[in-house]
Amino acid sequence: MAQVRNKQVILKEYVSGFPDESYMSLNTTILPLKLPEGSSGVLLKNLYLSCDPYMINRMRKLNTPSYVESFEPGTPINGYGVAKILDSRSPNFKEGDLVWGRTGWEEYSIIKATESLFKIHDTDVPLSYYTGLLGMPGMTAYVGFHELCSPKQGEHVFISAASGAVGQLVGQFAKLLGCHVVGSAGSKEKVDLLKNKFGFDEAFNYKEEPDLDAALKRYLPEGIDIYFENVGGKMLDAVLLNMRVHGRIAVCGMISQYNLEKPEGVHNLMHLISKRVRMQGFIVSDHYHLYTKFLELILPHIKQGNIVYVEDVVEGLESAPAALVGLYSGRNVGKQVVVVSRE
Amino acid sequence: MAQVRNKQVILKEYVSGFPDESYMSLNTTILPLKLPEGSSGVLLKNLYLSCDPYMINRMRKLNTPSYVESFEPGTPINGYGVAKILDSRSPNFKEGDLVWGRTGWEEYSIIKATESLFKIHDTDVPLSYYTGLLGMPGMTAYVGFHELCSPKQGEHVFISAASGAVGQLVGQFAKLLGCHVVGSAGSKEKVDLLKNKFGFDEAFNYKEEPDLDAALKRYLPEGIDIYFENVGGKMLDAVLLNMRVHGRIAVCGMISQYNLEKPEGVHNLMHLISKRVRMQGFIVSDHYHLYTKFLELILPHIKQGNIVYVEDVVEGLESAPAALVGLYSGRNVGKQVVVVSRE
Repeated sequence: MAQVRNKQVILKEYVSGFPDESYMSLNTTILPLKLPEGSSGVLLKNLYLSCDPYMINRMRKLNTPSYVESFEPGTPINGYGVAKILDSRSPNFKEGDLVWGRTGWEEYSIIKATESLFKIHDTDVPLSYYTGLLGMPGMTAYVGFHELCSPKQGEHVFISAASGAVGQLVGQFAKLLGCHVVGSAGSKEKVDLLKNKFGFDEAFNYKEEPDLDAALKRYLPEGIDIYFENVGGKMLDAVLLNMRVHGRIAVCGMISQYNLEKPEGVHNLMHLISKRVRMQGFIVSDHYHLYTKFLELILPHIKQGNIVYVEDVVEGLESAPAALVGLYSGRNVGKQVVVVSRE
Repeated sequence: MAQVRNKQVILKEYVSGFPDESYMSLNTTILPLKLPEGSSGVLLKNLYLSCDPYMINRMRKLNTPSYVESFEPGTPINGYGVAKILDSRSPNFKEGDLVWGRTGWEEYSIIKATESLFKIHDTDVPLSYYTGLLGMPGMTAYVGFHELCSPKQGEHVFISAASGAVGQLVGQFAKLLGCHVVGSAGSKEKVDLLKNKFGFDEAFNYKEEPDLDAALKRYLPEGIDIYFENVGGKMLDAVLLNMRVHGRIAVCGMISQYNLEKPEGVHNLMHLISKRVRMQGFIVSDHYHLYTKFLELILPHIKQGNIVYVEDVVEGLESAPAALVGLYSGRNVGKQVVVVSRE
């Protein structure tokens, strides 16, 4: 039976403090290119891997039960990716099918939890988009914005970490709906992207704003109807001061807080009352039953060129650890993708 | 024309820091017992006045726009009360009608905003109940619990400031629905009331719990599906650690924060994501169109003795300032009412 060398990214030990590449190492095993006798699931060849902010939580030893489980030191990291089926014992997939979903950070993976794989039907778009725009981050933007915030034309939308995989899509979805859209990001380059490429009405570099409240009042003088929360901490506190009556906050992530010993305190929650604000935390995987509805909305927009999408692509599994930890210093510009193999 | 002396409680100056009685004074004016020529509205004889936690916010100079306006120093305080119509130029009210709604802290009031008055049809219950159980606090409990939290039988409900006007009702509504109900309060006497009179499953004195997280884990080992938030600060932080997946938080008030120079920081908002929690601030007056629906639910329960209601009644307008500031030290046991006149 044909065997291959299978390069893998291993978590060496649990991360404490700020993550860096040294917590991961490369390893190579040998794998037969067939599912073993009696095995269930599918054998995948991984093509593209997705670097997503939530992954840091899995690299730590979690003391309290969470919606994600910690990775196991000594084994390959896993996450979202795009892959090709090489062998299948599942009635839902056959050899040659392209899929996106949860897979390993390695060249080949055996996946038993096939319910977390989605078959890719439309290949008119770059396959890597299924790690982002057409995958988990796209669904996250769609669910958080459309399903939880009930946006209306003309509303004032603010998005933090707006040039990231999710943020850039939320902003464009909001523009397509006729909203006034402002985003924050952490560099001039990202702010330029937001304004000149993604069509945001305004954008600002939060690192150059000593007073976030004043910045929000400058860019959103009428206040905020919808806040798509990706960062937490001080930004959330400033946003609470600027919410409009009956505002909505989709709590998608709090990336500024993930690597702190103790999360920052948020002081302005009383404004939830006076402004009757609804704040809703969510996990995209609760909403995957809406994936087909999402594709029907989004594919025509992509094909008509109504949506711009920026990826930050690195080549090879060797580059994956640096790409992942780069998320937490805001190094990436756009959706961070790792190419394992182009076919 | 008959004239009367009209005793009033005046706000002398805006409160800064912790409120005390010295910010208010008694004053007497002379009032004709008829509406002046050309005046609109109604002339009321006030019977019962309601002391409510939100009132402190109106006693301060508010710098940012809020859902309430600051009181005007030198004029009578106003709030919710029960009154009798002495003269009316409104087609909706006639002499002799009993009403509840917004009125002045004085013996007689001329009210032009008659849309904030509700006619009292059912007088089989004590009239003072329309300052509480059957008035604004009752509606607050109903809207926050039933309308915003979508409670289900068997769910785990936690209520802070649970012996107050709103909390005691939320707990009883939850018990009527078959929920498991736990409350916190600030004295042994209040805890006894919750357990022995209001039928809470468990209750604890937060002042005797150095570790609120541990207390919640002890009394709600399965976690919290619904939190009815009246206090904010440290309690909210502890609750966030104990929310169950798809939990709901109705943010009704944050009384622990109203008199602080700077509100405490809340550190555990990341749990909104992992537990997919919905947190909703609200103002009862947005929901008064539901008042008839509320009465249809609640009146039969009152008449069948399914609901216990505790008032802390003081006599005379002279007692009103002390009764109001007593709310912020938790002096009252049950709904704080001031009797101006019994008929």
